[in-house]
Amino acid sequence: MTDTSNGAQALIRTLVDSGVDVCFTNPGTSEMHFVAALDDVPEMRGILGLFEGVVTGAADGYARMAGRPAATLLHLGPGLGNGLANLHNATRARTPMVNIVGDHATYHKQYDAPLESDIDSIAAGAPGWFRRSMSPDTVAADTAEAVAAAMSPPGQVATLVLPADTCWLPAPGGAVAPIAPTPAVEVDQVDIDATAKLLRSGANCTLMVGGRAMGERGLRAATRIVEASGAKLLAETFPARHRRGAGVPAVERTIYLAEFAQMQYAGTEQLILVDTAAPVSFFAYPGKPSVLSPEGCEISTLADGAHDPVATLEALADALGAPAEVTVAEHTVPARPTGALDAMTMAAAVAATLPDEAVVVDEGNTAGIGLGGATQGCAPHDWLCLTGGAIGIGLPLATGAAIGAPGRRVVNIQADGSAMYTLQALWTMARENLDITVVVADNGRYAVLDMELDRVGAEAGGPIARSMFDLSGPDIDFVALAAGMGVEGVRVDTAEDLTTHLERANRTPGPQLIDAVIPPLQA
Amino acid sequence: MTDTSNGAQALIRTLVDSGVDVCFTNPGTSEMHFVAALDDVPEMRGILGLFEGVVTGAADGYARMAGRPAATLLHLGPGLGNGLANLHNATRARTPMVNIVGDHATYHKQYDAPLESDIDSIAAGAPGWFRRSMSPDTVAADTAEAVAAAMSPPGQVATLVLPADTCWLPAPGGAVAPIAPTPAVEVDQVDIDATAKLLRSGANCTLMVGGRAMGERGLRAATRIVEASGAKLLAETFPARHRRGAGVPAVERTIYLAEFAQMQYAGTEQLILVDTAAPVSFFAYPGKPSVLSPEGCEISTLADGAHDPVATLEALADALGAPAEVTVAEHTVPARPTGALDAMTMAAAVAATLPDEAVVVDEGNTAGIGLGGATQGCAPHDWLCLTGGAIGIGLPLATGAAIGAPGRRVVNIQADGSAMYTLQALWTMARENLDITVVVADNGRYAVLDMELDRVGAEAGGPIARSMFDLSGPDIDFVALAAGMGVEGVRVDTAEDLTTHLERANRTPGPQLIDAVIPPLQA
Repeated sequence: MTDTSNGAQALIRTLVDSGVDVCFTNPGTSEMHFVAALDDVPEMRGILGLFEGVVTGAADGYARMAGRPAATLLHLGPGLGNGLANLHNATRARTPMVNIVGDHATYHKQYDAPLESDIDSIAAGAPGWFRRSMSPDTVAADTAEAVAAAMSPPGQVATLVLPADTCWLPAPGGAVAPIAPTPAVEVDQVDIDATAKLLRSGANCTLMVGGRAMGERGLRAATRIVEASGAKLLAETFPARHRRGAGVPAVERTIYLAEFAQMQYAGTEQLILVDTAAPVSFFAYPGKPSVLSPEGCEISTLADGAHDPVATLEALADALGAPAEVTVAEHTVPARPTGALDAMTMAAAVAATLPDEAVVVDEGNTAGIGLGGATQGCAPHDWLCLTGGAIGIGLPLATGAAIGAPGRRVVNIQADGSAMYTLQALWTMARENLDITVVVADNGRYAVLDMELDRVGAEAGGPIARSMFDLSGPDIDFVALAAGMGVEGVRVDTAEDLTTHLERANRTPGPQLIDAVIPPLQA
Repeated sequence: MTDTSNGAQALIRTLVDSGVDVCFTNPGTSEMHFVAALDDVPEMRGILGLFEGVVTGAADGYARMAGRPAATLLHLGPGLGNGLANLHNATRARTPMVNIVGDHATYHKQYDAPLESDIDSIAAGAPGWFRRSMSPDTVAADTAEAVAAAMSPPGQVATLVLPADTCWLPAPGGAVAPIAPTPAVEVDQVDIDATAKLLRSGANCTLMVGGRAMGERGLRAATRIVEASGAKLLAETFPARHRRGAGVPAVERTIYLAEFAQMQYAGTEQLILVDTAAPVSFFAYPGKPSVLSPEGCEISTLADGAHDPVATLEALADALGAPAEVTVAEHTVPARPTGALDAMTMAAAVAATLPDEAVVVDEGNTAGIGLGGATQGCAPHDWLCLTGGAIGIGLPLATGAAIGAPGRRVVNIQADGSAMYTLQALWTMARENLDITVVVADNGRYAVLDMELDRVGAEAGGPIARSMFDLSGPDIDFVALAAGMGVEGVRVDTAEDLTTHLERANRTPGPQLIDAVIPPLQA
């Protein structure tokens, strides 16, 4: 970068030098100098999304697979607001991400122009690192700090607000060198030994893992620990990225339905947490507990976000003298399903056709109930979940995952209602020709809300209430919607057809959509 | 309401008793008791949107036409975030609206469940009245206050956060009586006389009007004033609702492009504001001023949000002894256009076919440049603008306007890029069978950004930058997208076909979409 650069050029060059070379964008006027600078720093790959929820969800998917942050480019408060739901999910996934939020020029804010709003407050909806970069003299350093903050354990969303004049004014200093992320804190050997003692004490222990412990090394160490100690192993409900399949130690995840989760934790006297929080109910229900571990159960955290959970688990396994060999999932693929299509045959079809090293993006919601079991013995794969409960992540997450893991097939199991939130991602999939198979689990309802209406005891809910969950009348034609955005699609309503089309789609370069018509879970 | 009601029932009954009987919804689990209560208070009409940006934009359109608020039902922080961009627009339009944002039960928040987030901060992105309703004993009173706040001059967004247990616990008190909005403050006769004196002083005066002054009575009074005094009359750039057409006094609106707006205000020595703010540039541009009125121009506000701008203008006209008769727009409808389709022939086609008492929803952006002039002499109609600059309002606004103005045809001129933001509104149009004609101004680009890239002086922008504005590759097929959501559509590329299809669509009950292929403004 020469001394003729402006703030935008210094910013982008610093991002690239810091290892951030993908930027998901939906720009506006206040970001024009940033956009112009993309031609000056061609190492930065700009990827256009037609809505900011696509942009932020894709940045999340990218980072979960690539292991390093993407940048986003968002247009003032409303652009940040549009991206906020998937930023919330990214915050819960502890995904490293660098948001660049364009703003009015510093001197222009006082005039309360129509697009002026309280960006700082909106950003608090997805808390993490936050700064407003007030000058081209500091923007490069701010950017390097943002990347370091995003990358520091356990990972977080970093948001840099970028006034337009910070971009367009000269930045004679140009880019700055990358800043190293904060290193992980080592867990004290005393704590590891104490936990080993607890595990050997005869108490009924459960080791609960999540976050960065959900990779193969972490799960292997966790399995060594429970096989050596007799403890129970459970994982969090919705991990950001879960390595699984044949040859990988299988781990039971905490069930979403609180009633069942309570059974999983029943009898636990000592709950040991590694990179996750103790299990609580997703929502409150009248007369039901919020905390899902048994009363009187002692909860201790061995490793949290600041630590390296994998190293910690390995140290604990060693302290227990656990053998290196562990039980792993066998390679067993379900038979090709036949007959009517429902959640279970859909799951079997996905499993029967899942490519090696697939990336599964699971926003199947109620329709995804059989997926985990069916795919347990498939070839090794990574599984990405909806971490924060804000629906509308699946299609964007798949988009970003495909960019972050080139050469691997992304299989996105996508509930219909959630698909409608951020449908625009299909266009980016087509534009970038991404290797994604989208299976729309099309039951024509917000079926989870039928279930939840029953669960909350809202017995008064009659036909008007139920009509608020009804996505038919008009029926949504996902094949037409896909075609409208340049993605080939097909509608299937038998298990055989789904299987056949999955096989075809998974080996076809570029995006493919399969609209799988299934009955609602409770029908 | 009996003494067996719960908080949700008391809330909805209070809304209905306060005149709020339409609720645009996208609920989740924390709102299940609210949804169940819809069956108990059937006077409340629940209307489902498949994304919260549709919900909030529709509530805006409803209130602009009905003159009273709709309620929205949103799901925690992410639901509010998804609705925030159109709430920003509603805030700028000063639209009365009552948002109900469901939240975790009061006792459940401490557990930081996955959907927990800082709702209070997010809501600050669309500032207005805000309260968290902590008990079923107070929820009815909170609701009545929310409606009164929304309705108090000049109108605002009121947001009531509703913990799940506030909904489900018994509310033996039931509903409460409506609370009267704050009355408008009367402008002092001394100020009116002083303004009359100013107008007679020989100074070069401009009367600038906006907001609630943009109805027929307000424009008539404003025109009396300028015709009696020789002042210039200008309106704000993007009014929430502008009455216009044959028989209505025509008013020149401030032009979006700052360079041209400066010419409109050139020479003004005294700028008198009625229910609007002094003109400022939408964005900052290097080396160009933010303030668009001339240097040295004195600016005074005669009536602001707290006042009744129409009564104030009428009092000022009377103080000037202005005759009641004013010049109004003549009835002149453009000839049916022929030949190639572009922004100007599209405008002529819309004007040549505009139904009596149409409601025009204008999110045409660059493609809408000819609309105002072409329709000036059409039969009387109302014109709804994008007030806050957050794109993606048109389709939702049209949806709500059709519900708020039954029996009138809504004609929505819709830029393609903005349409993609909240496309899901088409489904609600079909579900509710709303009389809406959507004309997609389909130029395959974010054409406004081509223009803005040039305007900001970002001369370095090359092919990479320009590719960020390109909506072709793949081309978006809006007819397929409409079909996917149950809306009939047709693609046209000549002025004759557009005119013919507009005529047909405007007299066809229910929604119709016309994909009008036009060249980008600068092509």
